Amino acid sequence: MPRSSSSSSVKAGPVTLAMVASRAGVSPQTVSNAINSPDMLRPETLERVRRMIDEMGYRPSRAAQTLRTRSSKLIGYGIQPVPFSSPVLDRFLHALSHAADEAGYRILLFACPSGEPTLEGYEELLGQHEVDGFVLSGTERGDPRQAWLAKRGVPFVGFGRMWSGRQIGDWVDVDGASGTDAAVEHLVAQGHRKIAFLGWERGSSGAGDDRAEGWQRAMRRHGLSTRGRRGQSVNDIDAARAAVEPLLDAGATAVVAASDMLALGCYQTLRERGATPGRDIAVVGFDDSPTAALLSPALSSIAQPLEDVGRECVRLLLARIASPGTPPERLLLEPSLVVRDSTTTTRSAPTE
Amino acid sequence: MPRSSSSSSVKAGPVTLAMVASRAGVSPQTVSNAINSPDMLRPETLERVRRMIDEMGYRPSRAAQTLRTRSSKLIGYGIQPVPFSSPVLDRFLHALSHAADEAGYRILLFACPSGEPTLEGYEELLGQHEVDGFVLSGTERGDPRQAWLAKRGVPFVGFGRMWSGRQIGDWVDVDGASGTDAAVEHLVAQGHRKIAFLGWERGSSGAGDDRAEGWQRAMRRHGLSTRGRRGQSVNDIDAARAAVEPLLDAGATAVVAASDMLALGCYQTLRERGATPGRDIAVVGFDDSPTAALLSPALSSIAQPLEDVGRECVRLLLARIASPGTPPERLLLEPSLVVRDSTTTTRSAPTE
Repeated sequence: MPRSSSSSSVKAGPVTLAMVASRAGVSPQTVSNAINSPDMLRPETLERVRRMIDEMGYRPSRAAQTLRTRSSKLIGYGIQPVPFSSPVLDRFLHALSHAADEAGYRILLFACPSGEPTLEGYEELLGQHEVDGFVLSGTERGDPRQAWLAKRGVPFVGFGRMWSGRQIGDWVDVDGASGTDAAVEHLVAQGHRKIAFLGWERGSSGAGDDRAEGWQRAMRRHGLSTRGRRGQSVNDIDAARAAVEPLLDAGATAVVAASDMLALGCYQTLRERGATPGRDIAVVGFDDSPTAALLSPALSSIAQPLEDVGRECVRLLLARIASPGTPPERLLLEPSLVVRDSTTTTRSAPTE
Repeated sequence: MPRSSSSSSVKAGPVTLAMVASRAGVSPQTVSNAINSPDMLRPETLERVRRMIDEMGYRPSRAAQTLRTRSSKLIGYGIQPVPFSSPVLDRFLHALSHAADEAGYRILLFACPSGEPTLEGYEELLGQHEVDGFVLSGTERGDPRQAWLAKRGVPFVGFGRMWSGRQIGDWVDVDGASGTDAAVEHLVAQGHRKIAFLGWERGSSGAGDDRAEGWQRAMRRHGLSTRGRRGQSVNDIDAARAAVEPLLDAGATAVVAASDMLALGCYQTLRERGATPGRDIAVVGFDDSPTAALLSPALSSIAQPLEDVGRECVRLLLARIASPGTPPERLLLEPSLVVRDSTTTTRSAPTE
């Protein structure tokens, strides 16, 4: 259907409610009722107006519908500036956008400041556009967004649980601990006992601590010592290179990393020492970034089910919009270990 | 400012136009005029209403403004499903979102089918939401979108020129040929003469042919033969591995690749042959993906100025919205070669 525009190149203007009313021989209010309150019309009138709407291709504009129904079919989503873009969140946004479209909703992007989550952008968006709700990502300790939105009765769903305080609202998260636990299981099955964990600094990230926890519990379950086996680094390749040194010095034969970036630091340190990742020391990453499959040797990594997360986020958000008063729903989805050469080509079965 | 909501947890309702009118002692129409047609009011009335709008923190809703002004401050942008997500376009979207925000606009995402550009999604979005215009990406030969939007008088700007037919509308693009030309210059300065190009299949992509063209013209300028030096591959690492073989067999000492993905295929083939990328054969990629800096050796690559592209796209689109009749503006931005170890550590100066 053509769109209203001031351009002279437009062939025909849009079909308006008034035009439908005129052609159907009814008042504009009757056409409006046919769309919004069909029960108010006699069946034969409703039938006539509906037929005319179909024939003329009339579509009520979303802005007009928003004013009537208070539903914009828009979901707000904050996005950080380029240097802070995360491939995982970028892939999540694709999945979210497609899941929203299938439900008849659209994603409205707004720019967030870089770094820790803040309220910046949320208040402004609410003042300008009638979004029906928000999807939050990058949830962190002390995240102010959930309480702020809940207080205002704005529907939201988090990709990510609350990492501090009481849980507020609905969320979908990936069970990171289960992922690193599975990585340890896989390495133990390959004969490894001295399995180190290279993570982010303790307490700096809820997701990071969760990933460390999974490694630790699996090691305990197998009666393996974690003493001297935990390295800490910011999520930077050079910092990771330094942090993995003492783990290798202490005789680790395998390293589970909290991110593919940290695993790459591990690769580089191994090469500097004349060792071959995979052949001499097994390495597992986290997030299964596009890089993981392209490395040599290809990096085993824990993949988050981002399409499922996107679909569940939309499902929970629409349920929340429809029923503000129902109890919150929280979903912890299982990641999957993608096994590649970095954990299956170790030269000899390592021994304690 | 609080938002209207049916939830009982909302502390205060939104400030409405009627509330401002009541407090200012004027009619709602007068408040509306103060916002949309201030010339119609006497200066003292305008002053009183404006003061009350400020004091009460009244913000007219976007949906209501859209109906009045036909401007939604929304820019439509199509996004493809996950397996087709491109890190370059993802980084562009971050830049675009931030540039739009700074201009008081937002990006409204909609899901596009994978593969070649189609009109799917555009018509539907126009029927549902009053976007003020579109930013197109992934422009290709036979792209139907520009002509379709122009015919309907819908403002748009392309990230990417038109690769076939006459140019339609405004666009911002990156001069890929200039990037591969600069790569050849850099390699020639390092002593290379046998410089191969590993590209996509001839004719399969406008951007790919453009990148090949820059390599070819720089080779000609230096009197270097291109015979037997051009390899073709789909953008897949295994296909690239096979395609680079004959180039190496023909004695190439350096390879310029049309993407980092193709460069990675080149890395893997070199390793299979017992050669070291960078040390034995110089390699240049395209797009400076996050992977490039993380490889060992780090990959020299041609970076697109995505933040500039995002900013210019928003600037051209807003100019087009403001002045539908002015001549189109088209910008070709320069990429930059990021030099890393893959082109600076070659063992010995190669000779013809």
